[in-house]
Amino acid sequence: MLSKRVGQRTIALAHPPSVLSFANIGGKCEGCGPLSTYFDELNDDSFFGQQTWEKAESTMQKKVLQRALEQARLKPKDLDYVLAGDLLNQCIGSSFGLREFGIPFYGLYGACSTMGESLSLAAMLIDGGFARICAAMTSSHFCTAERQYRMPVPYGNQRPPTAQWTATAAGCTILSADGPGPYLTHVTCGKIVDKGIADANNMGAAMAPAAYDTLSAFFRDTKTTPRDYDLIVTGDLGELGHAIVRDFFSKDGIELDSRFKDCGLMLYDRRRQDMHAGASGCGCSAAVLNGYLLTELRRGRWERILFAPTGALLSPTSSFQGESIPGICHAVCISSKLPAPSNA
Amino acid sequence: MLSKRVGQRTIALAHPPSVLSFANIGGKCEGCGPLSTYFDELNDDSFFGQQTWEKAESTMQKKVLQRALEQARLKPKDLDYVLAGDLLNQCIGSSFGLREFGIPFYGLYGACSTMGESLSLAAMLIDGGFARICAAMTSSHFCTAERQYRMPVPYGNQRPPTAQWTATAAGCTILSADGPGPYLTHVTCGKIVDKGIADANNMGAAMAPAAYDTLSAFFRDTKTTPRDYDLIVTGDLGELGHAIVRDFFSKDGIELDSRFKDCGLMLYDRRRQDMHAGASGCGCSAAVLNGYLLTELRRGRWERILFAPTGALLSPTSSFQGESIPGICHAVCISSKLPAPSNA
Repeated sequence: MLSKRVGQRTIALAHPPSVLSFANIGGKCEGCGPLSTYFDELNDDSFFGQQTWEKAESTMQKKVLQRALEQARLKPKDLDYVLAGDLLNQCIGSSFGLREFGIPFYGLYGACSTMGESLSLAAMLIDGGFARICAAMTSSHFCTAERQYRMPVPYGNQRPPTAQWTATAAGCTILSADGPGPYLTHVTCGKIVDKGIADANNMGAAMAPAAYDTLSAFFRDTKTTPRDYDLIVTGDLGELGHAIVRDFFSKDGIELDSRFKDCGLMLYDRRRQDMHAGASGCGCSAAVLNGYLLTELRRGRWERILFAPTGALLSPTSSFQGESIPGICHAVCISSKLPAPSNA
Repeated sequence: MLSKRVGQRTIALAHPPSVLSFANIGGKCEGCGPLSTYFDELNDDSFFGQQTWEKAESTMQKKVLQRALEQARLKPKDLDYVLAGDLLNQCIGSSFGLREFGIPFYGLYGACSTMGESLSLAAMLIDGGFARICAAMTSSHFCTAERQYRMPVPYGNQRPPTAQWTATAAGCTILSADGPGPYLTHVTCGKIVDKGIADANNMGAAMAPAAYDTLSAFFRDTKTTPRDYDLIVTGDLGELGHAIVRDFFSKDGIELDSRFKDCGLMLYDRRRQDMHAGASGCGCSAAVLNGYLLTELRRGRWERILFAPTGALLSPTSSFQGESIPGICHAVCISSKLPAPSNA
């Protein structure tokens, strides 16, 4: 029964599920960034036509699933499961965004690692024969996150240089047992890692140990090195967290070169857009994956990438009560070609 | 690849995973109820030795996992995954309760359906060959829920008769590919169902349509009737929600007899303990399952039960913004014997 496990924590999918379609949506800032041409929809209205930002975030989830369905020429009833979550209390971005579709729903909470968690579980549900087609998705919204985690938006809260900017974005991947690729070949589940960082304005540092833990486990389990991948993309570590992960690997004698990227450093133009340490939020890695990364994988720019979004598992309450910030990172290996053994 | 699907939404597990061990913890009120002898631990201190109720809830999750591990003579490293979630904002009951174990973690948000969701996904991960041993667990705490969803606890908020009492309880099931049983034979994933109920003090009515939807799908998919089960137990519909589900089935010509129960009506002594419409919270169905139900299944009192916890996917913010309450119900069929075809 354990033939699908490789090493301690990694699953090598026997029949790597294929990406059928993908879609993303962004807001105004995302439309001013270097990846703007990779968005399916950009909206300058932070309310997305709704009366509250929370309803705006639900609308983003609804729209991004509709777009991904349209691109795959599918109807909601063709999906066996949708796996989704978000940062809002009780994940209302997902439950209200998806309630009209009538698709069997597994709600997740992985904070900003949700795109990795939803892809991992969707891939295993398909590979295990429990589903044929699944959607994996998530969202975040600057204004809903700011007022929930920090301050009322009109207050214009001042932010330290280590703070990140929550992306107003959503992304959805539809996976299928068969398809044109790219393919999800491996998944590595994250562990909760807490090294005692308690500064909620420095979540990159809090999440970096989790990213290092999962990426190390992945390389160890698969007996590969960073050089075997065209791109290694963490979720939203931002400038400081990304540098910390590079340092950790350096101490192990592994130098991560320019192929080591972070979605939080890719979404905005860091010279023209002052986002401090970079982008964050579930929507950050979801939008980068479901636009730039999957598009360029399909175009053949890369053959094999490692996508490893990171999440900070705190709440305002836990911070008020003096707790440190547990982090988690879920990694997924995505390949434009089916690996030889499974291709038979 | 789709051989594991039965009908539209139900999975018949090819190698039904076995319960290896189970544990539950409750607070003072749970210890005064009719199921008190089925608890592994009861604690009169609502703080469970901690300084805040949130830390108390995390402690409950930590303790209940430790107890389940001990009963199965396992160490944390023997578990391939733990799947957990809770009602607290950003699910901090789970992330802080489980951070010291170092077990690969998939965080869930299914509100009070979490015990069903975590069991479903754990069972499929094992049946699919992705894991050998998994823990599925959740918790709730009256005081953390009350102040997060309703009013500060010392205010002594008055509650209408349809309101339910959030259980202070946690439950954990450890599942394995092989074991002495009981066995998880089928899982049916819930859909988000929202019939427009907007009264957050009447969550039973809000969740009843979801319970009816999932139970109907299960019976249709498996070509069985309620009479084929020794017990059909919904999560925490309470008095009103439970009656509504009975009504819905009655309109279909299906009379649910005394074998149709609800965890929310079982946890407290409704004559001596004034809990209004009954118990609720993720911990309610988790504690009833991981005590009374699994114990009596092992003792042979029942052969086959249907466990169907229900969740209300609202938040205080969504209610303040005038939204109705989406519900969900995840069903799991548990049998004390392996079904004949898989027994070969």
